[in-house]
Amino acid sequence: MMIVDNLQYANWSEKVFRQMREGGVDAVHVTISYHENFRETVLNFEQWNRWFEQYPDLIIKGLWAGDIDRAKDSNRTAIFFGFQNPSPIEDDIGLVEIVHTLGARFMQLTYNNQSLLATGCYEAEDTGITRMGRQVIKEMNRVGLVVDMSHSADRSTIEAAELSERPIAITHANPHAWHPALRNKRHEVLKAVTDAGGMLGVSLYPHHLKDKSDCTLQSFCEMIARAADSYGVHSLGLGSDLCQDQPDSVVEWMRVGRWSKEIDYGEGSASAPGFPPMPTWFKDNRDFGNIAEGLAKTGLSQSEVNGIMGENWYRFYKENFGPM
Amino acid sequence: MMIVDNLQYANWSEKVFRQMREGGVDAVHVTISYHENFRETVLNFEQWNRWFEQYPDLIIKGLWAGDIDRAKDSNRTAIFFGFQNPSPIEDDIGLVEIVHTLGARFMQLTYNNQSLLATGCYEAEDTGITRMGRQVIKEMNRVGLVVDMSHSADRSTIEAAELSERPIAITHANPHAWHPALRNKRHEVLKAVTDAGGMLGVSLYPHHLKDKSDCTLQSFCEMIARAADSYGVHSLGLGSDLCQDQPDSVVEWMRVGRWSKEIDYGEGSASAPGFPPMPTWFKDNRDFGNIAEGLAKTGLSQSEVNGIMGENWYRFYKENFGPM
Repeated sequence: MMIVDNLQYANWSEKVFRQMREGGVDAVHVTISYHENFRETVLNFEQWNRWFEQYPDLIIKGLWAGDIDRAKDSNRTAIFFGFQNPSPIEDDIGLVEIVHTLGARFMQLTYNNQSLLATGCYEAEDTGITRMGRQVIKEMNRVGLVVDMSHSADRSTIEAAELSERPIAITHANPHAWHPALRNKRHEVLKAVTDAGGMLGVSLYPHHLKDKSDCTLQSFCEMIARAADSYGVHSLGLGSDLCQDQPDSVVEWMRVGRWSKEIDYGEGSASAPGFPPMPTWFKDNRDFGNIAEGLAKTGLSQSEVNGIMGENWYRFYKENFGPM
Repeated sequence: MMIVDNLQYANWSEKVFRQMREGGVDAVHVTISYHENFRETVLNFEQWNRWFEQYPDLIIKGLWAGDIDRAKDSNRTAIFFGFQNPSPIEDDIGLVEIVHTLGARFMQLTYNNQSLLATGCYEAEDTGITRMGRQVIKEMNRVGLVVDMSHSADRSTIEAAELSERPIAITHANPHAWHPALRNKRHEVLKAVTDAGGMLGVSLYPHHLKDKSDCTLQSFCEMIARAADSYGVHSLGLGSDLCQDQPDSVVEWMRVGRWSKEIDYGEGSASAPGFPPMPTWFKDNRDFGNIAEGLAKTGLSQSEVNGIMGENWYRFYKENFGPM
């Protein structure tokens, strides 16, 4: 079985890379920028270059779908890169091609807040895709950088799906109907994205789960099976949002960056500001087998399970990472 | 015949790109940084990305020797990138791999002055390769970024040839014995570079030519034939240093950058501060045929002429642009 997890933001270490191998994870899309500007994002690419040098037996740089085959054939994990905010391109559309050349393959148009490109899901008003946003979507389409709307507001997401000439993605979220978290996506949003050939990566971040950390494997897998009925099983993949071994200071960086002097708790609260505990059946990269088993029990066929566990993202990577 | 010119810094335009096609130029190594820092150099990569988009019938981005074949087969010119100073990597060795990923293939360790890495040819004292310079040469070797010592001092150049595990280059200069310009290279320097498998790109910049702008084609070609006797014909290629259509303000930027408030005339003088006129037989990219004819008249064989005109650089690119 091919396993592709289309979103993680771990505190990377040899331990985590070894767990990826133990779990048979063939590819992971990792976030390398939240609020980092271009130069800071380049420092993060540099850090990954060091890790590729240090752990050549565990990980390889992922640029194209074929790198997943190369990783699988050599018992390694292909690492693909993405940004959860457009901060790395600053106000310079020319940086879209530059970051793609460096290896970026997904970029969120917003992270919770209004950006230069679109409206984030925590803003009171959603004004849709901006003037620069339209230009940047066109440029992202041209070079093969995938539009990710995981943290965007509804109207902005629907407009992005319409404006984009290539499929877009919600890399890490769940259906709002299952668990009405602010970050989970309403039916019309998921419909707009998947009708246009886009993908939903289902999230295992407890705030996105029904009953949060106590969510059952059965409930999670039945949510996926229902989403397959609504949006087509080929539109679904994993986007665990696993933030393994991160200190709570990191969730504060994710939420607040440098845009506010006051704390913003995002999906947390003053009484529970940190990372919530993961469900017992998905603690780290060694637990993907539980999900595959759980999916099979819902009555999905083995080929449908294989699609959700990795092959759907593989196909999406193959079609969307190169120039138009 | 394959034509590769291993150094130009024109004021790029559709006109110049069309002249490259008229002249049958298959590849050009262009300078995209003198004193630009990393972010400014990225802006120059962005500008070239725009030109590749605007003139897809004339030019393509060159990353590997095979791109020269691709250019030749489709009647276009492959553009390779290099820096005449290590300014783009600032004080960050991690940027060596980053700029290579973006397309840089040559980097001078110095431009006339002392740098963080080595001593330039205009300094009074030459202390050789610095501590950081040794680390950067190793990293350049690892990723496939060629050490270029065209504007470096003698001891630094000889040390670089010894320290580097891969061949280095003097991309644009001539033998000092032919014309004793400060920028032309003494026998022991050329010997150190070429004995280690490195290349000399012969320059057509008038300050590097005997009798400057009045240099004859015959004298230039005989200089090359003599260099072939001394250093091996396979060690020689072209590095015209053509700075076509540049205003004199640009030669001032090349010489002074931001390192001095006073004018430094470099190879020029107060009475002749600008770009000198090119020899009548080499005005622009349409004139490479004159050189090929002139070389044939010196008694070099056709295969030797083909090597100097392009095939030697092709071989060098093939062996030195990829990871070790």
